[in-house]
Amino acid sequence: MVDEVDAGRSRHERAAVRRAAATWSALVEPGDLTAGALLLAVGPVAALAWLRAALDHGDRARAVARLRERLADPPDALSARRLLAALDRWGPRVGRLDTSRDARALRSLGGRVLVRGDEGWPAGLDDLGAAAPACLWVRGDPGVLDGAAAVAVVGARAATGYGTSVAADLACGLADRGRVVVSGGAYGIDAAAHRGALAGRGPTVAIMAGGVDRLYPAGNTDLLERVLEEGGAVVAEVPVGATPTRSRFLRRNRLIAALTRATVVVEAAWRSGSLSTAAHAAELARPVGAVPGPVTSMSSAGCHRLLREHDAVCVTSVDDVLELLPGVQVGAGPEDVGPPDPREGLGAFARAVVDGLGPRRPSGLDELVPAVGLAPADVLGALGELELAGLVVRGPGGWSLTAAGRRPAPRRAV
Amino acid sequence: MVDEVDAGRSRHERAAVRRAAATWSALVEPGDLTAGALLLAVGPVAALAWLRAALDHGDRARAVARLRERLADPPDALSARRLLAALDRWGPRVGRLDTSRDARALRSLGGRVLVRGDEGWPAGLDDLGAAAPACLWVRGDPGVLDGAAAVAVVGARAATGYGTSVAADLACGLADRGRVVVSGGAYGIDAAAHRGALAGRGPTVAIMAGGVDRLYPAGNTDLLERVLEEGGAVVAEVPVGATPTRSRFLRRNRLIAALTRATVVVEAAWRSGSLSTAAHAAELARPVGAVPGPVTSMSSAGCHRLLREHDAVCVTSVDDVLELLPGVQVGAGPEDVGPPDPREGLGAFARAVVDGLGPRRPSGLDELVPAVGLAPADVLGALGELELAGLVVRGPGGWSLTAAGRRPAPRRAV
Repeated sequence: MVDEVDAGRSRHERAAVRRAAATWSALVEPGDLTAGALLLAVGPVAALAWLRAALDHGDRARAVARLRERLADPPDALSARRLLAALDRWGPRVGRLDTSRDARALRSLGGRVLVRGDEGWPAGLDDLGAAAPACLWVRGDPGVLDGAAAVAVVGARAATGYGTSVAADLACGLADRGRVVVSGGAYGIDAAAHRGALAGRGPTVAIMAGGVDRLYPAGNTDLLERVLEEGGAVVAEVPVGATPTRSRFLRRNRLIAALTRATVVVEAAWRSGSLSTAAHAAELARPVGAVPGPVTSMSSAGCHRLLREHDAVCVTSVDDVLELLPGVQVGAGPEDVGPPDPREGLGAFARAVVDGLGPRRPSGLDELVPAVGLAPADVLGALGELELAGLVVRGPGGWSLTAAGRRPAPRRAV
Repeated sequence: MVDEVDAGRSRHERAAVRRAAATWSALVEPGDLTAGALLLAVGPVAALAWLRAALDHGDRARAVARLRERLADPPDALSARRLLAALDRWGPRVGRLDTSRDARALRSLGGRVLVRGDEGWPAGLDDLGAAAPACLWVRGDPGVLDGAAAVAVVGARAATGYGTSVAADLACGLADRGRVVVSGGAYGIDAAAHRGALAGRGPTVAIMAGGVDRLYPAGNTDLLERVLEEGGAVVAEVPVGATPTRSRFLRRNRLIAALTRATVVVEAAWRSGSLSTAAHAAELARPVGAVPGPVTSMSSAGCHRLLREHDAVCVTSVDDVLELLPGVQVGAGPEDVGPPDPREGLGAFARAVVDGLGPRRPSGLDELVPAVGLAPADVLGALGELELAGLVVRGPGGWSLTAAGRRPAPRRAV
C-alpha cells in the first residue's frame, strides 16, 4: 500500500516523506479516518500533492473523482462525499502551516519525527489501520517505542493513595523486569506509573495529547523531564505547539493501547477516560488487566466494571501483569520469586498425595492408599489439608486435583 | 432408583425410611460415597437391613456378592472391594447407635429429620449424587431450605472490617430482595452474612459441621439462636451430639454449595476453606461470585484468585449477586433502583447521539449528523462525552456503541 516509504529509497526521498507526514499531522485532527485511509493508499507525499492541487482546482469534485480513479478499491472513508467534506475540513489549515518551523522547534528540543517505514516505527500502530497517526513527534529515545516490551499502566487522575501506591509498585516491578511502562503523563495513576518505572530504573514513555514542547500538565513538568533524562520518551501525534484539547485526550488513548502489548487499569471511576484506553486495547485484541480495589471505593468502580463486563483479567501483582503478555515467560528477572505457590508449606504426606493423584481422573481412597504408600488415616488427613488449601476437591468419583493443584511447580526465573 | 420414598407410601413406611436414613447419617462420615451409592441404589431401609445381615453373616464376601447380584449395574463405589472395606468402616459404629434417642433429642429442640422424598427436601442436594447426605437434621423452619431463593455468602473467619461490612451489606440487601442467605455460622464473614440477613428481615440458614444441638462456635450461640427465632434454620447432615471435626467442616462446604443457586465469597485468604465451597459450587455448575478487595489485603487474595483462575464473577453489589442467579430478574424488590446507569446524567445531545447510533454497525460522522439532526460540532462534542463515559468507541469504521452503551435502559423494579 505505502509505496513511498520503502527502505531502499534515497535519503532525499525519505526526508520528503517525513516532511509530508509531519504536515499531515498538523493538517488533520488525530484519528481522521479519511486522512488515514488516504495516507495508507497513496502515502503522505502524493496525498499532500493531491490535496494542494485539489484545493487550487476550480472543480473539487473533479479532483476527487480523479483520485478515486487512481485507487483500486477505495474504502468508505474515501468516498467522494467524504473526500469533499475532508477538503472543507483540511483546506483552512493549509495556509497556516509551517512544518519546517515545527520540525526545527522539535530538533532544538532534541526530538525527531518518526514515520511509517522508519526503523523504530512501532509496528503496533499499524494495527490501528486508517486511525493510525501520520507520524509521531518524539522527544527522548525513540528506541524505547518498539512496543515488544511495553505495558500500559493507566488510570484515574483522581486516584486514591491506594491506587497511586499500587500503580507505582506495579510499574516499578515491570521496569525491574525489563518492561517499558507507557502512560499518559497525567496526574494520579499515570504519574504514579511513570514515577514507579523510574524507581525501577526502567525507561518509561508518556503519550501527550498536545505538542511535546509543552510538558502537560504543568504540575508534572519535573516528572516528565525526568522521564526524558532517564532514557524514556515523550510522544505525541500532533506537532509541537499543538494544544491538548479534550478530543485529543480521547484520541491519544488509542495510541497508548496500540503502542503496548497489554493495558492495565489501576483505578478508574465508573466513567473514567481510562476505560476508553481499555476499550481501544480490547478492540486491538490486546489483553486488558484491571486492578481490583475495595467495592466501597468509587475510584475502583471502573476497574470492577472492566472485570464484570469486558473480560478484563484481575491483576494483583507484577507477575499477574506479565502473564497477560502473549508469549512472555513469567519470571525472567533476577528478583523473581514467582507468585505464592499453594504447594509451598504443605506437609510431606500432602505432597505425596498430590503426586499420587492423577492429572484428571478422580481417585478413591482405596486407589490412593497403595499408590501413595501411607496409612489410610494419613492419606485422609493429607486430603483434608489439600482440600483446605484448594488443591484437591472431592467429587462423586473420588478426589481429584483442582486447577491450582495441577499447576506444575513454582514459577521461577528461567 | 429410590423405591422406598414414594409419596404414595404409608405413614408407617415413611417413618421407617426416616429412621433408617437418620441411622445412616450416624453410621457413616459425610460424603461416604459407598454409603451414598448404596442408598441411591436400594434406599435406606433395605440398605440397613442388608448391612445388619452382612455384619452378622459368617461370610461377608458372600453377603456382598448377593447384594451386587440384586443391582443392575453397580457403580465403582459399590465394587466388592469397596463394600467389604465399607463393612469394616461401618461395622464398629452399628452397636453404638441410638437413633431413637437422637431423634427424641432433636424433637425436644423443635427440630425434624428431612429425607429424600419429603416435601421440602432440597432438590439441589440430589445434584451431589452419591455424595448427597442421607438426611438433614434441621432446627427451625425447613421451608426455607427449598433452595430456589437461596444464595451462599461465605468467607474467611479471619475477616477484616471491610469484609464483614461488605458481607453484611450484601446479605442485608439479598434478604431485602427476598433471598435466603445461607452460610456456615462461623466467625468472620459467615457471621456477618447471617447478621446482615437478619438486619434485612430475611430468613437465613446456617449449615453446621457438627450436630445442631450444639450451636457452634460457642461465641456465635446468640446469633444462631436469633437465626432460629427469625424464621431461619440451623442444619446438619450429622446427628445431634456429633462433634464438628475438621473433615466434617470441609464436607459441610459441599452442602452450602448444593443448597444454594450461587455462592459468593466475600473475603478469603489464598488458602481459605471457603475456596472449597466455591470449588464445590463450580463443580455443581452453580455460579460463583467473588468480592474484590485491595490487592494489598491478604484477606482478599483468595477472592482475586477465584477471579483469575476459576472464572468467578466480580461482584460488588446486591444487583451483581442477583445477576448471578439463573433466570432471576434483577430488580424485583421495592427498594430497587438498579445499578448506576451510565446513561444517566448525559446531556440531551449525547442522548440523541446514543439513539442515533445503530446497535452494531459503526457510523461515520456524516451518517450521524443527518440522523441525529444536530450541528456537526454538537455531534462531535456529544461523541467525546460518550466516549469518556465508555458508551461509544471509535474504530476504523466510525463510532459504535459499547456493550454498556447498548444496555437497554435503567433496570428498575418490574
